[in-house]
Amino acid sequence: MKATMLYGPRDVRFEEVAEPKILKPTDAIIRLSATCVCGSDLWPFRGLNPITAPMAMGHEYCGIVEEVGSAVTTVRRGQFVVGSFCISDNTCPHCRFGFQSSCEQREFMSGAQAPLARVPLADGTLVATPELPADDLIPSFLAASDVLGTGWYAASAARVQPGSTVAVVGDGAVGLMGVLAAKQMGAGRIIAMSRHKTRQDLALEFGATDIVSERGEAGVSRIKDLTKGVGADSVLECVGTKQSMMQALQCARPGAMIGYVGVPHGVELDGAELFFSQRGLMGGPAPVRRFLPHLMDLVAERKINPGKVFDLTLPLGDVAEGYRAMDERRAIKTMLRV
Amino acid sequence: MKATMLYGPRDVRFEEVAEPKILKPTDAIIRLSATCVCGSDLWPFRGLNPITAPMAMGHEYCGIVEEVGSAVTTVRRGQFVVGSFCISDNTCPHCRFGFQSSCEQREFMSGAQAPLARVPLADGTLVATPELPADDLIPSFLAASDVLGTGWYAASAARVQPGSTVAVVGDGAVGLMGVLAAKQMGAGRIIAMSRHKTRQDLALEFGATDIVSERGEAGVSRIKDLTKGVGADSVLECVGTKQSMMQALQCARPGAMIGYVGVPHGVELDGAELFFSQRGLMGGPAPVRRFLPHLMDLVAERKINPGKVFDLTLPLGDVAEGYRAMDERRAIKTMLRV
Repeated sequence: MKATMLYGPRDVRFEEVAEPKILKPTDAIIRLSATCVCGSDLWPFRGLNPITAPMAMGHEYCGIVEEVGSAVTTVRRGQFVVGSFCISDNTCPHCRFGFQSSCEQREFMSGAQAPLARVPLADGTLVATPELPADDLIPSFLAASDVLGTGWYAASAARVQPGSTVAVVGDGAVGLMGVLAAKQMGAGRIIAMSRHKTRQDLALEFGATDIVSERGEAGVSRIKDLTKGVGADSVLECVGTKQSMMQALQCARPGAMIGYVGVPHGVELDGAELFFSQRGLMGGPAPVRRFLPHLMDLVAERKINPGKVFDLTLPLGDVAEGYRAMDERRAIKTMLRV
Repeated sequence: MKATMLYGPRDVRFEEVAEPKILKPTDAIIRLSATCVCGSDLWPFRGLNPITAPMAMGHEYCGIVEEVGSAVTTVRRGQFVVGSFCISDNTCPHCRFGFQSSCEQREFMSGAQAPLARVPLADGTLVATPELPADDLIPSFLAASDVLGTGWYAASAARVQPGSTVAVVGDGAVGLMGVLAAKQMGAGRIIAMSRHKTRQDLALEFGATDIVSERGEAGVSRIKDLTKGVGADSVLECVGTKQSMMQALQCARPGAMIGYVGVPHGVELDGAELFFSQRGLMGGPAPVRRFLPHLMDLVAERKINPGKVFDLTLPLGDVAEGYRAMDERRAIKTMLRV
């Protein structure tokens, strides 16, 4: 089969590779219904994470179970499944506390920008739907695999409460999903920071009540104005740069939690500054598996439409263009039809 | 009157100063029943915080109201009161969210190692008891002013839950109060890290279930052993050094909160490390005022005895010896009789 490999900065190749096989009795092989390009794929694509060997790309996935290993009991051939980008056993203590992304057996999914993919620890990682979903729901189920689950975790880690005021830093796909999550959690006011018209529109559609187009100090000052000088109760940091983290900390009120899900690149925090600012932090790779059953129900019942975050759909073979479109900010998020 | 002034490293003087006066209509003057030396007083005493001018020392206090300004309505002359080391109006948005230590009008109390002290924003800062308390309760009421309230906040910020496993880093007075707080909040297991017999004994008396005397990596490894490799659900960081913060982060499980109340000195946090370790942080100066009414009730009803943390009592005139005893770790915490 042909699949997506990254050889170096901006060198995405769609090339012949061996088909995945069951390697352990706990594995499953799935035939992908759709896959996509993640904002985090852009870090190595841009050369900001080192690449020492060709990487099998793709960690967001949904599809039909093709084959399961002999130890797999909860999913079977022919079922439609969604899995987290974090492989987990869902039975270890960390999983039971709801932090499957820190599972004792954690692996990160790879090789999903392909027609077939191997999913380790299938019982702990995959969730099946009761029946095959309608085609038009595929994008939303796919979103649940990472981008929606990650935005949801940001809102959960930031302890969004009914009626609270939430600020979302970052208008990428995760930030937009954070807006959707905050809305579902009953936030009274959702301030999306975005400079781009198409993203602003989508944020409003997902539930944002205010848009702040300024950045840095001007952006913080706008949020202070909008909150009568107080700051937000919860802030979702969905970028991962030093600037975005500082922005998140500064637009929060004392006692607020920052849920941070952008992988930090060059972020250093001064202990004394954090102490006296009295802001709380909780983040990390999202334990999507915790949220998957609920999110998949919301999608199946058509209560949310996170699939709208895909504003570019390409055939899998055009995956390189999918990366470029996101890199150049021509697309928010690229879905790849398999 | 004579009061305590710090002139430079290890230069504590008990010397003649002007009596405090009402400066604003919101002030109160109190006649102290007792006062004490705080662990944080040792930072400037040791020369680790710069001193540019003589400092009026002391921020933990309880006593009888001597005089109130014309705008004060909730406390009156003759009442026994306890106040937070953080002066707050208790009406601004941050106060209403329970973060009085980030009050828009915040000041830090000073000059309380003296017979009389001025308390600004008396209505927002002081809490009166219904009647004058018995003498033997004075140490426990005094503790509520800072050290108990700070340990309590550490447990609250670390989200201690009934039945949860709590680790306390630091066996100073605040750490010991953290043990007491975790016990009151229903923690199932409380692991106190302490190398000193007298402190270990007090920790056990306050509710610790386990003592870990090892430090650094060995200490972390002991806590991992005690928790079957998982780590603690909540960690109270009550020191403020780089080593103690690293220890706190490492003995927590993924998803755990670290409540940190030791003022950080030289603590830098790497964003990516914190992200992948998936530990949460919440700290800062304790909003003692939030907890004061509850803590004062617990003391009045003799349900807790935090006053036991004072293992040295001296006349106020011997305040310099009180500092030295704590600096040399001959005393956990010095109470000063006025």
